[in-house]
Amino acid sequence: MEASRQNVEGRDGERDRPAHPGTFPTSAAGDSAPEPARRSIDFPVSVVLPAGGTGERTGLQTPKQFCSFLGRPLISYTIQAFERVSWIQRIVVVVAEEHLDLMTDIIQRFRHRKVGVVPGGSTRHRSIRNGVVALGDGEDGKPKVVIIHDAVRPFVEEDFLYEIATAAEEQGAAGAIRPLVSTVIATTSEGYLDHSLERAKYRASEMPQGFTYDVIYRAYQRCSESDFDFGTECLHLALQYCSTNAKLIQGPPTLWKVTYKRDLAAAESIVKETLSWSACLIPAPSGEAVALAEALRKALGALGTVHLRASDEPSVRAVEPAAIMDLASAAKLRNILFYGIQLCRAKETERWERSVLKVAEITSTLIRDRSPALVGQLLQA
Amino acid sequence: MEASRQNVEGRDGERDRPAHPGTFPTSAAGDSAPEPARRSIDFPVSVVLPAGGTGERTGLQTPKQFCSFLGRPLISYTIQAFERVSWIQRIVVVVAEEHLDLMTDIIQRFRHRKVGVVPGGSTRHRSIRNGVVALGDGEDGKPKVVIIHDAVRPFVEEDFLYEIATAAEEQGAAGAIRPLVSTVIATTSEGYLDHSLERAKYRASEMPQGFTYDVIYRAYQRCSESDFDFGTECLHLALQYCSTNAKLIQGPPTLWKVTYKRDLAAAESIVKETLSWSACLIPAPSGEAVALAEALRKALGALGTVHLRASDEPSVRAVEPAAIMDLASAAKLRNILFYGIQLCRAKETERWERSVLKVAEITSTLIRDRSPALVGQLLQA
Repeated sequence: MEASRQNVEGRDGERDRPAHPGTFPTSAAGDSAPEPARRSIDFPVSVVLPAGGTGERTGLQTPKQFCSFLGRPLISYTIQAFERVSWIQRIVVVVAEEHLDLMTDIIQRFRHRKVGVVPGGSTRHRSIRNGVVALGDGEDGKPKVVIIHDAVRPFVEEDFLYEIATAAEEQGAAGAIRPLVSTVIATTSEGYLDHSLERAKYRASEMPQGFTYDVIYRAYQRCSESDFDFGTECLHLALQYCSTNAKLIQGPPTLWKVTYKRDLAAAESIVKETLSWSACLIPAPSGEAVALAEALRKALGALGTVHLRASDEPSVRAVEPAAIMDLASAAKLRNILFYGIQLCRAKETERWERSVLKVAEITSTLIRDRSPALVGQLLQA
Repeated sequence: MEASRQNVEGRDGERDRPAHPGTFPTSAAGDSAPEPARRSIDFPVSVVLPAGGTGERTGLQTPKQFCSFLGRPLISYTIQAFERVSWIQRIVVVVAEEHLDLMTDIIQRFRHRKVGVVPGGSTRHRSIRNGVVALGDGEDGKPKVVIIHDAVRPFVEEDFLYEIATAAEEQGAAGAIRPLVSTVIATTSEGYLDHSLERAKYRASEMPQGFTYDVIYRAYQRCSESDFDFGTECLHLALQYCSTNAKLIQGPPTLWKVTYKRDLAAAESIVKETLSWSACLIPAPSGEAVALAEALRKALGALGTVHLRASDEPSVRAVEPAAIMDLASAAKLRNILFYGIQLCRAKETERWERSVLKVAEITSTLIRDRSPALVGQLLQA
């Protein structure tokens, strides 16, 4: 059995890469326009990201905003989503006292700019207030508009932030809404159904929300201790204490909040899907390379692209597993996951075709799973 | 370099296994009691599973109840959750006309018992009504209690079904509720905030719900065409047309509904987590086997168990990749995913320890990813 060698590289994003700038999806879950128009904003906008949650509901020891997938903590994805937006000036992250060091470390490790950290208060409103006050103390002076978002909603997009910021500047307040997923019902004190709300008349209030600095600052100055203790809705404070009826804008489903442990798997699946799927074939000088590329293209389908490239590295043609391992180690430094697949170059067409299908199957799996643990392996097709 | 061979098997649940009865988690997401008390019910209970949805919101072509993960369609997991409950007699699945054949095929392929299929109506209420009517026509006569559930909520548990069924039998109607995740707000017709609801007074109405047969049957006989066209809440019909105030019972977070494409990844992660993680080492006759098993045990941690087993198959010791592949093909027939890992048996302690760590790393990855595409590969540690 003779063998020809094909090397398949899976690019972009593995578990143990310290920082891979620029790979964050520009749109998530495939339900947005392909290339959104980039509009700019001519007034200062900054962000408060409350991240003081203890993550009780995820069933995890680490608060969910600090849980990692694909080598990056959730909160870093969220920060990145804001940093990508050129017209956003500063981002103040509010974390519990005991997480100040961890947060500072994340900012350094993932090279976040624009970000400041302040300690949180005992409730959500107290934490957001601390963030708003910190923004006012900045050397650039207070921003015109403050966007408030949750650290655990990583898939916020520039176009939607634009809508919120401009509506907030015009109306004083603006917030994202979504249709209700369940019927909302009122219960009697004994735990029986009292009545159900007519679903069409109500909406779920989501994040992000935007406020002019003056509205949100005044709202927090005027509101009661009871609001600070038990309230959760900033739009309500703006209405009650500043008579500002927020503009409500329907957001995309991607605004959803990572709440439970299972949501981390969902978030990972979205990031994986939006990473580029491309395979680069470095074929040995054999006629079958083109046929193989064609078969791979078919097998990967919409998932990816296949490039056929002449190799300029002679070592690629080495058949020793140890050589593949060395190549993989070198590739890893350049943020490339490198796996070898040994293709059986059989005489019979049937065997060859089966082998090509196997290459495609293994390639799909490698690209989908992106396992750093299997890097440098020489797999058999 | 000498090499010793260790074979690691990943058991339970891969993508292309046609049916693996009995592996469904008894509790999901790790927030339930370890061994719930099994209580029985002395009146007939049957189930209606509306599954007529078109799955528009998932961003998938296949309706979400028919989407598969780990080799099984979502709806089959849900059916299985009910079949496991001894006191549930029949399950009527209501599907759109065009999915009758697909559903019948799923029932056969996954060997579901207790299940009947009826064609759905043009709306949710019409579909549920069809299911309720079909239960009344059964040869065993109508059940005392009907449980209505969604096909896309696969993680319903026996203990909660017990609570719903007994409350329904006592009160005429009962339903699952959950705390509201977002603030619910009323909007003005111009799209501005009118007021926000006090979150503590309201709940989200979820599934399952239970009704005595008479209550749900009468509710559907008496309700209006407008209810059939626009309504979604069965508890509301029971209240309005039978003056039955449903008992509301707080359900676990695992009752959540697979709505978006990302939720399929979340559901898969829950099923994977509850599958058993066990590695079975079949060591070559070398002194290091015990040390290796110990290192593996440490590396897998709480995730799994490691068995050390003397091999009774001489071929396991073969070093040829082709032999591993043959063994894997044979193992696959017995629902075992078989991978080979070649361990470097170096003289220097440091090299040996690195190699053992690598075995553990690869093993974790193989067990977690459960890739059928990599079965039979001989990996290097």
